[in-house]
Parts: sequence; structure tokens; C-alpha cells
Amino acid sequence: MLESLLNPQSIAVIGASRSPDKFGHRVVRNLVDCGFNGTIIPVNPNADSILDLACYPDLKTYGKEIDLSIIVVPAPLVVDAVRESITAGAKAVTVLGAGFKEVGGEGVDRENEIAEMCSNAGVRLLGPNSLGLINTENNLNASVARKMPSRGSISIFSQSGAVCSTIVDWAHGRHLGLAKFASLGNKADLNEIDFLEALAADEQTEVICGYLETISSGDGFVKAAEIAASTKPVIILKVGTTKAGGRAAIKHTGEVNSGSIGYGAAFKRSGVVRADTFGDLLDFATAFGLQPLPDGDRIVIITNAGGPGVMAVDAIDRLGLQMAEPGEASIKLLKGKFPPAAMVGNPIDLIGDAGPDRYVEAVTTLQDDENVDGLIVIMTNQERTQPAETARALKDCLKGEKPLLSVFMGGDEMSPGRDELAALNLPYFISPEQAAKAMKAMVDYSAWRKRPPRVVTRFPVNRRRVERVINRHIKRGHAEITEVQAKEILRAYDFNVPDGGITNNAEDAVEVAERIGYPVAMKIASYDIIHKSDVGGVKLNVANADAVRDTFELMMLRVNRRAPKSRVEGVYVEQMCSPGLEVIIGTRLDPDFGPMLMFGLGGIFVEVMEDVTFYLAPITQEEAMQMLKSTRSYKLLKERHGQAGIDLQAVASGLQRISQLVTDFPQIAELDINPFVVREIGNPPVVVDARMILSVANDNNG
Amino acid sequence: MLESLLNPQSIAVIGASRSPDKFGHRVVRNLVDCGFNGTIIPVNPNADSILDLACYPDLKTYGKEIDLSIIVVPAPLVVDAVRESITAGAKAVTVLGAGFKEVGGEGVDRENEIAEMCSNAGVRLLGPNSLGLINTENNLNASVARKMPSRGSISIFSQSGAVCSTIVDWAHGRHLGLAKFASLGNKADLNEIDFLEALAADEQTEVICGYLETISSGDGFVKAAEIAASTKPVIILKVGTTKAGGRAAIKHTGEVNSGSIGYGAAFKRSGVVRADTFGDLLDFATAFGLQPLPDGDRIVIITNAGGPGVMAVDAIDRLGLQMAEPGEASIKLLKGKFPPAAMVGNPIDLIGDAGPDRYVEAVTTLQDDENVDGLIVIMTNQERTQPAETARALKDCLKGEKPLLSVFMGGDEMSPGRDELAALNLPYFISPEQAAKAMKAMVDYSAWRKRPPRVVTRFPVNRRRVERVINRHIKRGHAEITEVQAKEILRAYDFNVPDGGITNNAEDAVEVAERIGYPVAMKIASYDIIHKSDVGGVKLNVANADAVRDTFELMMLRVNRRAPKSRVEGVYVEQMCSPGLEVIIGTRLDPDFGPMLMFGLGGIFVEVMEDVTFYLAPITQEEAMQMLKSTRSYKLLKERHGQAGIDLQAVASGLQRISQLVTDFPQIAELDINPFVVREIGNPPVVVDARMILSVANDNNG
Repeated sequence: MLESLLNPQSIAVIGASRSPDKFGHRVVRNLVDCGFNGTIIPVNPNADSILDLACYPDLKTYGKEIDLSIIVVPAPLVVDAVRESITAGAKAVTVLGAGFKEVGGEGVDRENEIAEMCSNAGVRLLGPNSLGLINTENNLNASVARKMPSRGSISIFSQSGAVCSTIVDWAHGRHLGLAKFASLGNKADLNEIDFLEALAADEQTEVICGYLETISSGDGFVKAAEIAASTKPVIILKVGTTKAGGRAAIKHTGEVNSGSIGYGAAFKRSGVVRADTFGDLLDFATAFGLQPLPDGDRIVIITNAGGPGVMAVDAIDRLGLQMAEPGEASIKLLKGKFPPAAMVGNPIDLIGDAGPDRYVEAVTTLQDDENVDGLIVIMTNQERTQPAETARALKDCLKGEKPLLSVFMGGDEMSPGRDELAALNLPYFISPEQAAKAMKAMVDYSAWRKRPPRVVTRFPVNRRRVERVINRHIKRGHAEITEVQAKEILRAYDFNVPDGGITNNAEDAVEVAERIGYPVAMKIASYDIIHKSDVGGVKLNVANADAVRDTFELMMLRVNRRAPKSRVEGVYVEQMCSPGLEVIIGTRLDPDFGPMLMFGLGGIFVEVMEDVTFYLAPITQEEAMQMLKSTRSYKLLKERHGQAGIDLQAVASGLQRISQLVTDFPQIAELDINPFVVREIGNPPVVVDARMILSVANDNNG
Repeated sequence: MLESLLNPQSIAVIGASRSPDKFGHRVVRNLVDCGFNGTIIPVNPNADSILDLACYPDLKTYGKEIDLSIIVVPAPLVVDAVRESITAGAKAVTVLGAGFKEVGGEGVDRENEIAEMCSNAGVRLLGPNSLGLINTENNLNASVARKMPSRGSISIFSQSGAVCSTIVDWAHGRHLGLAKFASLGNKADLNEIDFLEALAADEQTEVICGYLETISSGDGFVKAAEIAASTKPVIILKVGTTKAGGRAAIKHTGEVNSGSIGYGAAFKRSGVVRADTFGDLLDFATAFGLQPLPDGDRIVIITNAGGPGVMAVDAIDRLGLQMAEPGEASIKLLKGKFPPAAMVGNPIDLIGDAGPDRYVEAVTTLQDDENVDGLIVIMTNQERTQPAETARALKDCLKGEKPLLSVFMGGDEMSPGRDELAALNLPYFISPEQAAKAMKAMVDYSAWRKRPPRVVTRFPVNRRRVERVINRHIKRGHAEITEVQAKEILRAYDFNVPDGGITNNAEDAVEVAERIGYPVAMKIASYDIIHKSDVGGVKLNVANADAVRDTFELMMLRVNRRAPKSRVEGVYVEQMCSPGLEVIIGTRLDPDFGPMLMFGLGGIFVEVMEDVTFYLAPITQEEAMQMLKSTRSYKLLKERHGQAGIDLQAVASGLQRISQLVTDFPQIAELDINPFVVREIGNPPVVVDARMILSVANDNNG
């Protein structure tokens, strides 16, 4: 994939320059200096040769076909350069330099024009506003980067050129090898999804890192990321996920953005390792890039000082990792070898005078201990500390089956140790907390890799009935679906809805009430009244025929007085439901990722405590149960589940059924079953109230 | 304070050595090399001179008085060396090297012996197990540190020697000057409180940093920290605050520890800046050490790349800081000076080709903008970026009235810029998120500095009545105070307790009920029954005389059957309380910091959601209101406060009164008023149930 971009045989540089301070020169020099072994064709009407390469006034004069065209001319000349490249048979084009969508106005037109030309010709376009790309495997440096990274297994794509070059510079300082590197720029054609696909298939790439400000297509992203993450870690820093950050990102990229919740749900689903900060991105890249994944979450800490050991334990506890309990054999072995003042437990305190040998003993023993999944090794500079020697000794004794993250703490005195670790391709961290955080990311990703296969249950439902209700609403331009109609839809998806009926006069109401049995609930039915209680449109526990008559007439009177303009369908008379635990289940539409399922305990928990979880539709049974478990109030659910036997599986099943509903009917923008009253096993939960909103406008437009 | 330790005129080194690899040599060499200008007296019976200094077999032979004695002999010889020092008139002693409390056994005895000797002689002791101390003001390096820090304004004390030397090494790499430095070791005498007091008074010290594993005295710590923090920032990393971390710290220091809640409350109260990680400690030290405090929380971001700008905005939003809105004049001025592609808002994007001049324009303008409280300046390496020049230009244009935190992102290419910043005494950070976190710490501390004076209200109470109840319990060895007695105590502190009385037979019960009016609540009264409901010992809403009789007899029957061994005082008959909002107020005893007040909304919120706040007693009215405000469920309280008029001040007043109660009676280990039913203004809250536990054992022992 992206063969002509990543493995071209011939490259034209349109806008090649002889002035060393110009991008048009830098690109040619990078190609030459880094050892690209295909043909380089500099194009410049005013030069005969550049860096000893024959220069052509245009591609027509050159006359042969090219694979990749790198365009470095000023923005107003780019359209012509792209046309010329396509004519010359280019299969991929990279446009460096700014002056496109990001500046608005004619920049937008210019970008659309080149994107369309490329698309029509079947040519892939990287950029515009890109810094180019690098493939260390074949010494291809088709970028303006000032440094060629050394060869390695980490590939990077970034929407920000500045972040690209920052990462390359940082990787260089860390002796960290890179595989592929792509500056996505404005993503007029090639975007993160293309690179996720290409890098997933790329044998050189073992870890994918991405920096994103927008996602080009939520659906495509989730699919591509899930496939990629199934074979190698995908670490992404997505910025602009807070409210203020979102506003700033819109200014910068001109695009609206999902919030943190949408990304959280999408990343969780697709196994993406989420970096919350730039520091995380770098730390995680190092850990995943240089160490194997842990099999579980039991971590042992090896240190030559008590204090930093406790820092690591605090971090492990806060992050929800487990302190490993090394086996008796390990303990005995190490106790025999260490001085009596050393503490052999977890942390293992080798004490201040530990040289490389004690580190080696501890690591050699514990990497073979079946009670240990990962190792954090801490070194502070004390009297007999030998940072560089210890780094080498660690490298020699490591089997590479369990991750070892080193923390070499301090300034200049520790630098030789850190440099040695870097040179030996071992990760290092400055503080115990950073190492623990990277370990946690590895543990979580490793658990995701072992997840059971996703099987989405299909329930037998009456789809046609729902279609009828929805089409009727859309035809009439009604976005809001009334409670009565929403309940009809939910009944068609096998929800337990109280028996009831719409009535148009007091006698009708009594008839329905007599049929379903007292007490009943009575509610006004109107498209125009969303908050029924506010206009006196709800009465519960109506106990007999007389009361039903009185309620009907009083309700009509009050609603007419308080909401005179609303069209009233009648009064809905409904069975009262026996009490249980009130939960909310529903869906929201994320701008990037489509329908997301929502779960929370009763009103206060969702509204005040914000104790609510989201998951991308469609969900499996495991994921639905996971939604329940990841609320803070799950404790309460579980307790009640134990005692009176609240049916948690029934809640999960409700989530799965609305997942199926919103997948079947993407027109549903929002659905709230609130409250969904959950009862003991054998007594299915009841939809007490429901509302639904359609995206009518979109549908009319579409 | 600590004059003879920090400013000695003469220093003896007992155990001075000629072998360069021994601590006994290093100390003498550090004293000499760093330029200590008093008298140095090496003591070693086997040497005539060390480093050209005359050496004495013992202090008696030297014959003159000394100020400070540094003891570097092996642990078994330390007792004699301390005795010799005291005899020679030493006013302070430092014991380096291990072999004391931390090894247990005779190490403990040894430590106790030297501590007692010093205490009896009025001599201050640093250590044992210390690495020594440094005072850059007078070139005193009385430590085994391998480096002498340059002179600066940051002082450090640390309980871990390894963390001490790590910080010194790090500070050196950052060109960060230090003032005083003390390795506390085992804290047999001098501890963090002494250094907080000394450093608060020290003119050279502008920022105090501490690393602690234990606190020597909670009370003393809070007092000393509050006084110190009132004049200069006190930044502390306290480890071992998680459950697992606490266990690890006990192993390391042998001492039990408060949890995170206790420290959280103590630090909040005393204005300590809490570092959660080692990275925070270093970052905060740099920010506070090198920049002025902000006046408010409105932050502006200046960047040469959009992406990192958005990272900073995300961080600002997450941390609860405000994005500044620069004034119109600033915007206009900058728009006139910058190229059209630059974005002048917040963030201010100087775009990729920004040289030092644009940074200077932005900083010069915004540091004078009254809508801006702090500046974060971000630089990525792009085409025309000049890191070192920009660093110098920033230094030149800074007025030093508002904090500016720089983020120079990248590897080797940015190092010259970072080095220049360090050399110019400007802080730098590697990622925008780190800078934002440091800014947040400064904003919070600055707000604390402006807090209103703490005035603890004293309510008129009946203290003697409480004394009687408590003494009676203590005499009988009853730790648990029954509901009835607890309510008597609370009534004496002016709480609104429902009317009621203990009754011993059914007719008594009816008599009490008739007096207070129906309906009544009836509850079993017994020292031995804590969970009254479990044994059928609670009945609410008893409506008439007959029901009271039935309830009395049934309750006695059931309690006798279900808890046959419990001593029953009778049945408490009590007025039923009208409904309201249920909250929990109470106290807990922290092992380090004594009584802490507790507040939370009803049962589920505290138990399931852990939505509960703690504050050290005694509290002021502001602090009590702050406790309410810092729960997540405050939203709900405020809403109800708006609607039906829940009396929030009455809850605060309840907290203040139990604060007074536990301050007056330190014997109270635990108190729960649960529920405390809060109602509208004018209708005071009611103590519906209460329990109290005394620390009887302690009291008997004491």
C-alpha cells in the first residue's frame, strides 16, 4: 500500500532550488545525502544542475515517467505543478508549503482543485501543507526535516508539521530508530486512515504513533485502528478534546471535533493506546517500541534507594496495577546473595552500595519468576553506583520476554547511564511515576489484545414497525418522537413497555384503565410538549374510574390553559410499574463516531455526579456488561444484585437492543430511556419513560 | 535558628580519613574545596594531617571549643564520638552513615542513646543516617555530596539521602542555584519542622522544597508549614500516601503513616504546594524558584505552532485554569505587527517562521495586559526558529511581574535554547502540559496567600455536660457512646436534637410519646448494640399509644432473642423529624494530623461515590462552606438551596460546632451524625442518628 509514495523508483522535485536556505534545495539534498537509490529529477527552469544532478525546466522535457512528485513551488503555482506531475505519470504527489485550506479563501479553492485532479487521475496526494515523508528502510528522505532518523521500528504520522519535527529531533536525542514518518498536513487526500492501513501491513513497523487534531472519518478510523492495533500497538495523542481545546483546534484546522468522550469510546473500542499528553506520547513510544508486552499486571520494583521505590509503589497503586509477590524460591535465592540490609520483597531494595551485579541478580531471578509480569528498575546515584556499566549489564541479562522499564534519576551524573541505555535500545524514564504510567499503558493494551472475539448479538425484532413510525415522523418533519410513539418503537425491539393506550375522552380513558387494571398512570400526548409535568400533563397512581374521569378533564383543562398552542393527541393511560432500581440507558450521536450508547444510574448520578459511561455502537454483551462495571456506582448495582437480585444481564441486554436499534436506524440522533426500571431476575425491566430525537434535517437534505 | 549547624565557625570531622574513596575524606575535602572559611579540625588517631590540615587523635587533644561536629565513624563508634563532641562544646552534631533505627535491634538503642545525650546537653542532632548539609551562602559543604550546588534561592530538605543527591545533581544540570540543603536521615532530633522554621526565617531562601516519607508531628508540621507558606512557597512531595505505598514506606522507615486524605487536608490547610510526583517536585521548584506568582488564573499561550498550542489549551481546561482574553488594544497592536497568517487571540500563533522579534512583541504587549495573569511560551524548532537568541530576547524583555513559563520542545536542536534559558535563570519545560501544571500550582498557591484571615468561631456551649458524659464512659471503659448519649452531647453543643426520653416499660414509653406528640420513633438503647436495625431495634412512625405499647414489648422480645448478651438500657422514644435533605457530618482521627472534619451528601454519595471531603479541625466558617463546595454533589445542594431553600449555612455551622467539640474533647476518636437532616432556612437541621467512639485505651494509658 502507498507503494509509489513509500518506495518510489523515481522522484521529481518541482521547485528544486540552488539556494541552500530554500526548502526546494533541502528536499533535493535530503534525497541525495540520505542515500535514495532511485532517480532524482530536479525541476527548475532557471538551473542546469542542482547538487550535481541534471536539472530540467519541466517534466515534459525530462520525458520519462516518474513515480513520486514532490512539489515545493509557491502556493499559486501548485495547481500547474500538480497537473504537470499527473501528465508525467506520477502515481503520488506531495505538496509541501502552506497557502491552502488553512488560510481560507482562495487557499480552499486551490486545495479542492488539486485534490480533485489527483482523485480523477487515481493519484494519491500527501498534503498540502506537509513537511514530506521519510522511509528509513530504503533511505528515502522526501522531506524538509533537518535530520534523518536512524533505522528502527517506530512509525509516526502527524497532522502538525511542528510536532513531526519535534518528535524526529527528540527521537534522535534518544537514539530511537524510526521506520516511516509522514507529515499529513491538510489531509486533502491521504489521511490517518490510509497510514494506519499502510503501517499495519508494513513489516518494518512494530509500533505506530500518531498525533491528530481531527479525525477524517470516525467509522473508517475505528476500523483501520482496530485492525492495526490487533497486530501492533497504535499510540495516539489527540488534542482539542476539551471544550477550550476544541475551540482552539477549530481555529487551527477549521474543523469541528468530537469531545473527549467520543474519542475515549472510539479508542477503547479500537484498542488505541491513548496518550493524554505530549510527554505520554514520547514515553509510550519508547516503552512499546523497545520492550515486549507484559502478560499481566503484576509489577516488581527493583531499586537502590527506598524513597524512589515508594514513589513507584504509590504510582502503581494509583494506576490500578498490582504489586507482584515474587515466589518463595526467588526470595530465598536473592536473600542468599544480597547483604542483610537489603530488603527482598517488593520493592526489592538493593541498597545504596549496589553495583551492576546486584541489579543483574535481581533482574535475572525475577524475569523468570512466574508471579512477575513486568519490572521497573530504579537507580539513583549513590556511592558505588555505576550507571553505564549497569545499563550494559542489564542489556546482557535481559531475556526480552517481560518488559523492563528503567528509571535513572538525576542530572549529569546519570546521563552516561541514560545514554548507554538509549544506545543499547533500552527505554529509560526520569521519574518512577512516568515508568509506571508507561507500564500501565502496556498492561492495558496487552489485555485488549487478549479480548474475546467481538460477537454482536442480533435480536429478533419487528423492524418494519419501527420503519413505519420513523418514516411518518420524517415525512411530517417531526424530529421529536413522543413518549407513546417511542414506546411503540421500543416494544418492537422487544422492550418491556407497560400496557396502555391513547384516549380521546374521559370514557375512553376509563375503558383502557379498566382493561389494564388500576392503578394507572395518565400522561398528556403531544408532539409539542416535551416537559409534560411542567404543564400538569402527568398524574400517577390514579386508582379508580372516577379518578380517571376527573384526571382526564383536569389535565385537558390545564394543558389547554398552560400550553394553548400545542397540538394534543390525547391522554395516554398506562399501567403503573412496580418499583425497582432506576437506571438511564440511551444513545447520543457523536459528530465523528456516530451513535454511542450511554449508561448511568438514576438521575442524580448522571446529572450531578457525571457517573455515566459511553461505548460505540454496536456493542457486544461483554461490552455492555463492561459499561455497567465502569461506572463508579457499579458497587451499588452489584450489592443490589447480590441482595434482592437485580437483573444486571437484563440491563446489558437493553443496551444491546438499543445498540441494534440505532444501528438499524441511523436517523435516530438521541434516545433516552429514563427511567429504565430494573427489577429482580425473572421480572424484566420496564421502560417507564422514553424520548427519541431524529435527525430530520439531515435526512431531508440527504 | 540552627545557627551553629548552618553558620558554624569551627567544624570537627570525627573519622576524617586520608583515603580518597572514604566518606571521612570526602567530607574534609568538600569543606576545604568549597571554601569554608572557619576552622576545620580533622580527627583521626592514625594520621598527622589530612589535605594539609593538622589532624588530631581526639578533640581533647585539640583542646578548643568547636561549633559543629561531623561524625563519620562506623556506627558502633558513634556513641563515643557524640559524647566526645558534646564534651568539646559542640552545639550541633551531624551523624553520617547507616546502622541505626533503620536496621532495627541495637541500631535502635544506639540512635536513642545519642538522641538522649544530645537532648540532655542541649545539642542539636542532624541524622543519624544523614548525608550532611550544605549552605551555599557561606560556602559550607558539610556533606558527602559529590557536587557543590551554585548559589540560589531554593532550599531543600529530604528524608531520603538518595533523593537529596538526585535533586542536587538535577539542579546542577539545570543551572539551578540552591540556598540550603539538609539530608534529614532518621530525624532522631532535627526534623522537617525545625527546617521549615529555620528556612522560613532564612533570608537567602525564597522557595522551600521537601521530600518526606513520614511527618514527625502532624500538629507541629501544620503550624510550621503554615507560617513558612505565608511568606514563601513550600513545595512538598510526600510519598507512601497510597495503601500499597504506605506499606512500602513502613518497611522503609518503620513508621505508620497518614493516608492521602490526611495529607491532602493538612497541605490544603497550611498552604503547602503538594507535588504528586517526583517530576512535579522538580517542575514546581523551577517555576516557583525562578518566576513571580500570578495574580489570578487567566493564562495566555504564545506559540510558533498550532498543535502544541492546542495541547496547552487542553491542559489549561483540564486543570481548571482560565484562557485569558487579551484586551482589544493588545490584539490591535499585535495584529498590526504580525504577518496576516499569524493568529492573534489565545493562543497567539506566531507561526512557523517566527524569530525572536515576534516572541518579544507578544510577551512585551501581553505582560502589560491587565486581562492576563500568566504567560506560557511555546517553541518548536521550525525554519527560522532561533532558540538561544529567543531565550536571551525573552530575558531582556521580561519585567518579572507576571510568571512566564517556557516550553522548548524537541531534542538536541532545542538544547541550546534550554541551556540558555537555564543559564539566564528562566524555567523551561519539555511539554506544554508540564508548564500548565506548574502554572496551576502557582495560581493555587497565590490564591491561598490572599486567603482571608482564619477566624474560628467559638459557640456558647455547655462543655461541662459533655465532660460528664465522656468521663462516665471512660471510667467504665466504654469506647462506644450510644445514640442517646451522643445526642445528649450534641444537644450541649447546641445541635437540634429531636425531643425524646429513655423508657423502661411500655407505660413509660406511652407517657413520653404523649408528651412529645405522635408519631414517634422508638429505638433500642444499649452499649452493646451498634447496628440497631439488625436486631429489630428500630421502629419509625409509631402512631398512637397502642402501637407504642406493642412496639415496646415486641422490641424487647426480639432484642433479647437476637442479642441475648447485650445490656439494654431501655427503649428511646423520640419525636419523628420532618423530611429534608440527608447529609453526613462527622469527624475522623488521622494518626498524624488529629481530628479531621468530614462532610458528604447522604449514604450512597459517601459510601459508593466516595464523594466526601475532609478538613483539619478546627475550621472557620469559610472553610466549612469550602467543604460543601468541594464535593461533586454540591451542584445538587446548590440547586436545592435555590429552590426550596436548603439552609447551607446551617450545615456549615454544624461542621463548625463539631469542630469545636472535637477540639475541646480530643478523646473523641470518631463521630458520625448520619443522617443530619437539613431543611429550609429558619427550620434548623436535625440530628436524626449519631454515634461516637472514644479513644478509651489511649486515655487509660495516658
